[in-house]
Amino acid sequence: MTTLPKIAVTMGDAAGVGPELCLRLLADPEIRKICTPIVFGDRVAMIAVSKATGLPMPTEERSIVNSGLIGADQLRPGKVNRLTGAASFAYINAAIDAALLHEVDAVVTCPINKEAWNAAAIPYPGHTELFAERQKTERFCMMMTSPAFSCSLVTTHCGYFEVPQLLTTELILEVTELTHEALKKIYGRTPKLVMLGLNPHAGEGGLFGNREEETIIAPAVKLAREKGIDISHPLPPDTAFLPSRRAQTDGYICMYHDQGLIPFKAFNFDTGVNITLGLPIVRTSVDHGTALDIAWKGIADVSSLLAAVRLASKLACSN
Amino acid sequence: MTTLPKIAVTMGDAAGVGPELCLRLLADPEIRKICTPIVFGDRVAMIAVSKATGLPMPTEERSIVNSGLIGADQLRPGKVNRLTGAASFAYINAAIDAALLHEVDAVVTCPINKEAWNAAAIPYPGHTELFAERQKTERFCMMMTSPAFSCSLVTTHCGYFEVPQLLTTELILEVTELTHEALKKIYGRTPKLVMLGLNPHAGEGGLFGNREEETIIAPAVKLAREKGIDISHPLPPDTAFLPSRRAQTDGYICMYHDQGLIPFKAFNFDTGVNITLGLPIVRTSVDHGTALDIAWKGIADVSSLLAAVRLASKLACSN
Repeated sequence: MTTLPKIAVTMGDAAGVGPELCLRLLADPEIRKICTPIVFGDRVAMIAVSKATGLPMPTEERSIVNSGLIGADQLRPGKVNRLTGAASFAYINAAIDAALLHEVDAVVTCPINKEAWNAAAIPYPGHTELFAERQKTERFCMMMTSPAFSCSLVTTHCGYFEVPQLLTTELILEVTELTHEALKKIYGRTPKLVMLGLNPHAGEGGLFGNREEETIIAPAVKLAREKGIDISHPLPPDTAFLPSRRAQTDGYICMYHDQGLIPFKAFNFDTGVNITLGLPIVRTSVDHGTALDIAWKGIADVSSLLAAVRLASKLACSN
Repeated sequence: MTTLPKIAVTMGDAAGVGPELCLRLLADPEIRKICTPIVFGDRVAMIAVSKATGLPMPTEERSIVNSGLIGADQLRPGKVNRLTGAASFAYINAAIDAALLHEVDAVVTCPINKEAWNAAAIPYPGHTELFAERQKTERFCMMMTSPAFSCSLVTTHCGYFEVPQLLTTELILEVTELTHEALKKIYGRTPKLVMLGLNPHAGEGGLFGNREEETIIAPAVKLAREKGIDISHPLPPDTAFLPSRRAQTDGYICMYHDQGLIPFKAFNFDTGVNITLGLPIVRTSVDHGTALDIAWKGIADVSSLLAAVRLASKLACSN
């Protein structure tokens, strides 16, 4: 008999849909067949949401690692604040600690709220950067993945104007290699990658832009191919997501956040999983935010969290 | 009995799919019920493609306005050159002349090849700019439209890095007004518009970027609303194309080429029409390029041209 992987699931911001998603996850019999989920969060928040929604609390004590940072009287559904922000940060750190001590095999994160993190003076733009720093990783990237296709981001949470100065051949190659490795693990074969250009029509031979395609992106393609990676030359972004091209593509290397996430979310809105590549421990995440407008109402869709937990279990097993 | 609108259809580059598309169009009985199409092109090219593909030549002499710029021995399918480029430029100018003289009611363009235009030293980035200059129009923009949704571009054919410095409140307002007017004509009611942000997460309150959403885009929304336009505040681009949002949206105001054209082409690859808004004469265009790889093979898909001609006929009638 094999041991099921232990998956730490951080509860996210208590004022959002995170507690409800965790209750739904813990009550899912199919998930229990592939892993043992353990929620890192606050028991009082889950009890409050259980009362508000009628969803059952888990019967096993050890299903929840309780932070104790929030009092029952401090919770307001849909109202993020410094306190829930600070607590959501603590859940992640506790889950990372557990992973580094090999007490859990992977970490899956529910949504945090950046406004609440700012209010709590937490100096990270998001989960990805926190995980990378805690694990002393400089070589990492964010990939959104679904059964249909995946998008990896060369630049992520920065202003539109900053992208051209952040792009380097080295960085693009790194993201390409990380994506190739991850998708090879997921698909069990050499994945087919598409490299995107930066400019309209991929610059159209220098007509638009500063020849970033020729001077920065194409050299990364050349180096990646020398390493046996199956990747296109830099393609015009606007036709790269046509149905015929999508059907032939496992993963896209995207130069900036919205180049990848506009098409990814448009097509994979309910099956997407966010995965941080390059970390020593496996980390996946839901594909959506705290959804404050529907918090604690019993109508949150758990499918993205289930997909994230399934993928984390699969990757933890093949590690 | 009403007179059908006369639609000038430019043949595009003779080495591409343009001549085949024009043959298919002229042979389409449904199109003849709504308009009288007149191809501005070269008869020799259409005869050559008719022989190569078996598609019939039109029986009516007046279906083609012949330029006579190309000799039969100068044509090579799939090989663009200076000559076919210069000829494709001449077809457009002839069609614009006819429109300005009210000999035709609208112009529909088949694809030209920018490489061929460059070889012929034609100093326009594309159709849109040529039409605008010939008609002395400064207030114009490119919109891609389909029955599902439309995308208008605030900036179009420029490098990625140039976009932030080109965005102004005035320009965004202009594109919003043009889009509102055009979609009102198409739908016969007040259209629902979405304004997109420039940065990831629409800047997330200044976290990413230079607050372009607050300082440049939001003021355009305010002014547009004062004019009775139904438009959202600047939305995060990556969730603006989710199915629930698409279902509520007639048109998107996009800050740059690929922000609009990645999702537009991904969803409307065979029904999209390119329309230049703000011109005194109606101009629509196919949604694809010269497709040199399948030129003269009898396998080109005419659906985008048919959609472009149908829309031009509709707009010409309501002008």
